[in-house]
Amino acid sequence: MRVMGITTHDLRAPTSRTLAGSDAAHADPDYSAAYVVLTTDVDGLVGEGMTFTIGRGNDLCCRMIEALAVHVVGRDLDELTADMAGTWRAITSDSQLRWLGPEKGVVHLATAALVNAVWDLWAKSVGKPVWQLVCDLSPEELVACIDFRYLSDAMTPAQAVDMLRRNEPTKAARIAELRRDGYPAYITSAGWLGYPEDKVRALCREMRAEGWQSFKTKVGISVESDIRRIEVMREELGDDIQLMADANQVWDVPEAIDWIRQLPSGLRWIEEPTSPDDVLGHAEIRAAVRPVRVATGEHAANRVLFKQLLQADAIDYCQVDACRLGGLNEVLAVLLLAAHFGVPVCPHAGGIGLCEMVQHISVIDYVAVSASLEDRTTEYASHLHELFVHPAVARDGRYVVPDAPGYSMALHPWVFERYTWPGGSEWAG
Amino acid sequence: MRVMGITTHDLRAPTSRTLAGSDAAHADPDYSAAYVVLTTDVDGLVGEGMTFTIGRGNDLCCRMIEALAVHVVGRDLDELTADMAGTWRAITSDSQLRWLGPEKGVVHLATAALVNAVWDLWAKSVGKPVWQLVCDLSPEELVACIDFRYLSDAMTPAQAVDMLRRNEPTKAARIAELRRDGYPAYITSAGWLGYPEDKVRALCREMRAEGWQSFKTKVGISVESDIRRIEVMREELGDDIQLMADANQVWDVPEAIDWIRQLPSGLRWIEEPTSPDDVLGHAEIRAAVRPVRVATGEHAANRVLFKQLLQADAIDYCQVDACRLGGLNEVLAVLLLAAHFGVPVCPHAGGIGLCEMVQHISVIDYVAVSASLEDRTTEYASHLHELFVHPAVARDGRYVVPDAPGYSMALHPWVFERYTWPGGSEWAG
Repeated sequence: MRVMGITTHDLRAPTSRTLAGSDAAHADPDYSAAYVVLTTDVDGLVGEGMTFTIGRGNDLCCRMIEALAVHVVGRDLDELTADMAGTWRAITSDSQLRWLGPEKGVVHLATAALVNAVWDLWAKSVGKPVWQLVCDLSPEELVACIDFRYLSDAMTPAQAVDMLRRNEPTKAARIAELRRDGYPAYITSAGWLGYPEDKVRALCREMRAEGWQSFKTKVGISVESDIRRIEVMREELGDDIQLMADANQVWDVPEAIDWIRQLPSGLRWIEEPTSPDDVLGHAEIRAAVRPVRVATGEHAANRVLFKQLLQADAIDYCQVDACRLGGLNEVLAVLLLAAHFGVPVCPHAGGIGLCEMVQHISVIDYVAVSASLEDRTTEYASHLHELFVHPAVARDGRYVVPDAPGYSMALHPWVFERYTWPGGSEWAG
Repeated sequence: MRVMGITTHDLRAPTSRTLAGSDAAHADPDYSAAYVVLTTDVDGLVGEGMTFTIGRGNDLCCRMIEALAVHVVGRDLDELTADMAGTWRAITSDSQLRWLGPEKGVVHLATAALVNAVWDLWAKSVGKPVWQLVCDLSPEELVACIDFRYLSDAMTPAQAVDMLRRNEPTKAARIAELRRDGYPAYITSAGWLGYPEDKVRALCREMRAEGWQSFKTKVGISVESDIRRIEVMREELGDDIQLMADANQVWDVPEAIDWIRQLPSGLRWIEEPTSPDDVLGHAEIRAAVRPVRVATGEHAANRVLFKQLLQADAIDYCQVDACRLGGLNEVLAVLLLAAHFGVPVCPHAGGIGLCEMVQHISVIDYVAVSASLEDRTTEYASHLHELFVHPAVARDGRYVVPDAPGYSMALHPWVFERYTWPGGSEWAG
């Protein structure tokens, strides 16, 4: 099978109209997907992938995907997948485009879309969901999917293989467990910063009734309003519920420490307390705000950032993002790093399609990599799943293990008609 | 005066045909400029700025500049410059576009072009070169140009003002000194990785005859070929010449340490030994390879990276780039940080227009910020200056202080005709 061509789609949902997704740094997001379809010479078989953005600039991600596509289009799928680390290295090392990163920003978001589409195609070609494709790889095969450049001071391929080998005998039991119980999750949808108090209260009650046990709220406008938001959620949800807070990068390091210490006790974690690039700053904050723990990762540009966050003891939770990193290959690298350092992975999701992808990532983490559910929880947000042919499903506060072949990226035809920017029916006029 | 409109130009020079600029990570660069012209309501007065790339993707930088321009076009210049920190914050905090960075990659390169054009316009409007505009600001005014977000754990605005105040009485003497002697520089143009040995030898002799005392070579293909390259340059240049080596990010941390230890003694610095994002890796390499010193910065995405490189004692030389950082505002932040930590700034240049900009930056550093020339040297590369109406000039191995109003960004009309991509005469057919 050969990859014959590529099409990209600039899809944007008008979420800013309801303030769903709003936070301290992003007041008016229009949740968007730079969406890619790889066509093949096999009738009906396509590779679908995407990267997530929040509106303006989504078109530039589409153009960048097209620029990177030269490393994929025209090649046999077997050739691409026989050396996934090499395929990834070719894309991220494009001798002119890498200058625009390297391995960060638009060029890396575009890499994610393209790489995720290759994984989707690979998984469909063998009739498995992506998580199962990965979990069925031998330790050596899985490690061979990862570009270890810049990682060897923290973890060698041999160490990664050893870690994976220890989990081999017990994989099947963990798959059965997840199919029975689902994967633990938390929900962010009650706590968007733009929501008024009565809406937050109503959403908390509704989500509690749906079985959610773990919630997250946005903070960062003022200490007083943050305390109020947390108290309101505690009133509705009770003290036995887990509650996390997300500052979306608004604080300087000393400001973060001072602010977090003033918040009500009992928060499980504070998320993105400062610049996502500030490894040393996160380490300083983490040491200062215990027992509140520190989470970050949705804006950590690449595995080199995660490596340092782990080396510097800067985080308690590793929040990989399916698109901020350069697609599943690099996500696998970070899962291995996190397990190597003993830090739980709690993926970032929400957006468009992120829940659909992270359900695979969390299953891979439990089945093949960390072999632990301890202190793990994966983000879930309840909007925009209706776009997907095989949407992520949460039941009783847990993700249901996906079954459809691929990376769960297929969209309904109406999505293109409605959300294409600027010509779709949602945007025209 | 009001900014009335913006035009962008995708300009690319076919440097890959001669391998000028080639290094271990970038085999075939076509040196390019995403060039912006801000038009005003004053006849003949425009603001010119650019960011530097190496070819493909330069068009996307142009599109991003246009997307960010909403924060500049239609506003009075006085309003933009009265709060330069606020102007910069507005551009870098665009509520949707920041997702594509934040403060890194295409969106930050585009920020640089736009911000540099505003500085150019401001300087022309007062009839001064940019370096003089900045050096004539009071300490409080200069510090007010900088967004201190994420910096306050390392340096406060008050500390920065104190540092600048100490230099006030002696500024005029340093300006006179630089006008007389120029600013110390080194040259990279003999050592591009794609050049054969006889070409390197000829260039070394030629540049030595022009008065150059400090040279840099590219390394990173193999230990053997690197040793040979360094020996060849030493044969031509003698032992009294300063020689630096640039690895352009090709090594892992342990590999870098092992490799550097095998290189001939006497190297002044090793540049970009590993991932530009790896603060902790640079610190480990620096501690291991003494007396060779460590330089990096041309790919350090923003002030937060530089802050950490300085906090972690990871670098001996701080190589700010005029376009990788978000324009002159953020460059000023890094100059102040470096002076605060006592690390010399040796700006990255070459490319298109980088020499033209860094000559201003180095003068600002000496006159207003660090007040020291000790262990400082600014990169110079000899090609593509003919594009500029007021090109950077090096004499006896030193930059001549620029005199023309603005940021030295004006291009000759033939450049647009010839280098516009893809329609210019150099590219058509």
